[in-house]
Amino acid sequence: MASYLTGLIGSGIGPSLSPPLHEREAAHHGLRYVYRLLDTDNLGHDVGELVRTARRFGYDGLNITHPCKQAVIPHLDELSADARMLGAVNTVVFDGERAVGHNTDWTGFAESFERGLPDAPTRRIVQLGAGGAGAAIAHALLTMGAGQVTVVDADPGRATELAGRLGERFGHERAHPATQDDLPGLLADADGLAHATPTGMALHPGLPLPVELLHPGLWVADIVYRPLETELLKQARALGCRTLDGGGMVVFQAAHAFRLFTGRTPDSERMLAHLTDLVTS
Amino acid sequence: MASYLTGLIGSGIGPSLSPPLHEREAAHHGLRYVYRLLDTDNLGHDVGELVRTARRFGYDGLNITHPCKQAVIPHLDELSADARMLGAVNTVVFDGERAVGHNTDWTGFAESFERGLPDAPTRRIVQLGAGGAGAAIAHALLTMGAGQVTVVDADPGRATELAGRLGERFGHERAHPATQDDLPGLLADADGLAHATPTGMALHPGLPLPVELLHPGLWVADIVYRPLETELLKQARALGCRTLDGGGMVVFQAAHAFRLFTGRTPDSERMLAHLTDLVTS
Repeated sequence: MASYLTGLIGSGIGPSLSPPLHEREAAHHGLRYVYRLLDTDNLGHDVGELVRTARRFGYDGLNITHPCKQAVIPHLDELSADARMLGAVNTVVFDGERAVGHNTDWTGFAESFERGLPDAPTRRIVQLGAGGAGAAIAHALLTMGAGQVTVVDADPGRATELAGRLGERFGHERAHPATQDDLPGLLADADGLAHATPTGMALHPGLPLPVELLHPGLWVADIVYRPLETELLKQARALGCRTLDGGGMVVFQAAHAFRLFTGRTPDSERMLAHLTDLVTS
Repeated sequence: MASYLTGLIGSGIGPSLSPPLHEREAAHHGLRYVYRLLDTDNLGHDVGELVRTARRFGYDGLNITHPCKQAVIPHLDELSADARMLGAVNTVVFDGERAVGHNTDWTGFAESFERGLPDAPTRRIVQLGAGGAGAAIAHALLTMGAGQVTVVDADPGRATELAGRLGERFGHERAHPATQDDLPGLLADADGLAHATPTGMALHPGLPLPVELLHPGLWVADIVYRPLETELLKQARALGCRTLDGGGMVVFQAAHAFRLFTGRTPDSERMLAHLTDLVTS
């Protein structure tokens, strides 16, 4: 019977919930499965060396997180089409002699969105945050057919850069950069708000935008999942907005990686319930 | 819930049965447990580097086999008393910051002997083979109270050297070297024959000594376990000798390592049944 050795490469990943999420789901499938944290803060930051050594030491696959999702690419033999398009890899599968990069962040968000906000209108979406998570989310929204995504970031250059890349992929009329000063007008006219900055996490409490910009005609999706109910989602719900918390993206990116590693289809509802346990206990 | 990542370092270990033995027993305990083969033929022969890297990449412990059981010692922080005495380590446990070496080969043989040949007389024992396995077996026999072990090896210097080391530990009157020419006289007067050479394995078929030297007054213990019934044991049984096959030593050294890795007491009868399945299927 096969056994699976997988892990996560990234910086400061001690609090990651991936080990219990993967290992418990594997146990439900009767799989021998261990998921280890390979923290670059301890192991060194040469991600190529880390990937090669993990493979030599029996790993079947790896998740990759900040700050290695781009840096890992030159060390892989092959990329999935979407990882190549996004320029970011969060999952590496060792397939015989080849190391193949995938991206399950965007598919994770897409499945979470379809599940949590079915039939939500996506004519015009405002997105806060143009970092790695923002890139995956905007890619997901546009892939799912959003009319227009406007990207706002505290660093205007980063917003411009992401909008440019999205525009090349999806058409420049569908992706625009904007500044925080533009938010009142943009949100008044938007169907939804996608939040992809760290604000609202335990260490970065508060709201990522003035609460008076929210209105009941918006859905609000947050990527923060610790806590699951951020201040943003709480205020949005109080106004009657439809909301989506960050747990789904975490679970579905993990579920999609689990499927790539094992070939098994995980029970993502069971994984969601497990995540909720882990985050609230 | 804890998970366990363990493995085996050695040369040419592809056919090792340790992964299924450990992993299946762990599954019976509901443990998340993966056992990987780290073959020095692929990974390089610097065992210190292999041990350090395995630890950095999330391993909880390692088994060590030929040709690394001595070479690993300078790379460990601490040795159990018996590993120090034997000068050989087959199990390394990563205990916080420390790498601690143990030897479960000799305890594995001792438990197998007590289980398989209870109350066998051990006044005078002839042992064939003075390599690493021979050192562990002779140590076990003398520790269990054997009166005298006479060691014979195709390389007389190796027999002399092992007998000398055993003599220092257990008293020089209890351990002697001898040559193959001495076997007729030695065996005529012996209670038992311990066989610790590769003869009888699939790749080294045949008998390690002339069959006419066997007699019904001898018990015969073999360390070869592939096949479990060697030509030596078959001939000995035909003569009416009590016999012990090599499966017990494999299982009990694995069981003792499993206990060191996990703190759990394995069901060694279940592991023996599993080994028999693995070897005969």
